[in-house]
Amino acid sequence: MKIIETKAAPNPRRVRIFLCEKQIEVAFEQRDLMECALKSEDFTALNPMQRVPILVLDDGTVIAESVAICRYFEELHPEPVLFGTGARDRAMVEMWQRRMELGLFFHIAQVLRHSNPKMAHLEVPQVAAWAEANKPKVVEMLHILDDHLATFEFVAGDRYSIADITALVAIDFLKPAQLYIPDACRNVGRWHQQVSARPSAAA
Amino acid sequence: MKIIETKAAPNPRRVRIFLCEKQIEVAFEQRDLMECALKSEDFTALNPMQRVPILVLDDGTVIAESVAICRYFEELHPEPVLFGTGARDRAMVEMWQRRMELGLFFHIAQVLRHSNPKMAHLEVPQVAAWAEANKPKVVEMLHILDDHLATFEFVAGDRYSIADITALVAIDFLKPAQLYIPDACRNVGRWHQQVSARPSAAA
Repeated sequence: MKIIETKAAPNPRRVRIFLCEKQIEVAFEQRDLMECALKSEDFTALNPMQRVPILVLDDGTVIAESVAICRYFEELHPEPVLFGTGARDRAMVEMWQRRMELGLFFHIAQVLRHSNPKMAHLEVPQVAAWAEANKPKVVEMLHILDDHLATFEFVAGDRYSIADITALVAIDFLKPAQLYIPDACRNVGRWHQQVSARPSAAA
Repeated sequence: MKIIETKAAPNPRRVRIFLCEKQIEVAFEQRDLMECALKSEDFTALNPMQRVPILVLDDGTVIAESVAICRYFEELHPEPVLFGTGARDRAMVEMWQRRMELGLFFHIAQVLRHSNPKMAHLEVPQVAAWAEANKPKVVEMLHILDDHLATFEFVAGDRYSIADITALVAIDFLKPAQLYIPDACRNVGRWHQQVSARPSAAA
């Protein structure tokens, strides 16, 4: 099997951190999304959504979507558990993973994609007013996360999970979007230092 | 336990269809999101994201996010399987659920939320150019889905799954957004008739 990815993009990093936490080694192949390599006919045949990362199994099956790839490896290598254990815990991890992805990562990405001239060929059309509209949504979500991290060590509760991976990649994506963690969000700062110190953060 | 929802909104319908397929009965309580009932202090304490549906367990635990609620019930009542079985199948269901949610449902919702004057108090600010930008993305995804449904009976393959539920709710949401299935997408039409005929579609 192999993973096709763009090293510098945030979604592939989610999968690399996940694999590092699991200590799973997989072969990687690079395609440069900034060079429109994902719009080629051969890549589109692998993933009609024209996005990375994708996991190509030995039988040719393609699994796209970062979370789907992570879930595949969670099923094959359950330890350490990154999607929760038991009905309630798995639901909480799913809830927080989604909040971090749809409520934080997504809005940060929209700011970048709709405001940075370098993204103009990937985001057609760029809508400057939409980039602006996402900025307060990022701040709002960071405050919600900050309140939550006043009580909990990790995003989905007492244990590191895929929700922390999504949140870490999102927060490290603030800088390219020219955004930052508000000073008042000290719990987010504490958590960010903690998860950034794990070896997987370098993946 | 109980589910707090807004009957007319699309996300709560996803959970109701899921529960109907599983033949699980749960008590429902209504809050009108159009009347800003989700912005109240008591509801915000339950879900700081101010969204429905939420599942409130007997011990007071709140599970928000439709997919997290569905996954909770899948763990407790595995049959009929709606999230797949085995690593590969579960990954494919996750992939297609996400494609239907992020690549279809999301864009349809953006068209409605950013163009309909009745949504102005919920989507601040409304960005008309963003509504427009989402319309071709909806059409593109419907064509990708159509190609896929030329080979497969259901969205995630040979078996009805949560990916079909998300796709059905998304496609039934085309009309309020003043969009439609392109005539050329005959496979989507065939599939839509088929899943709409299941008793759960009325949930």
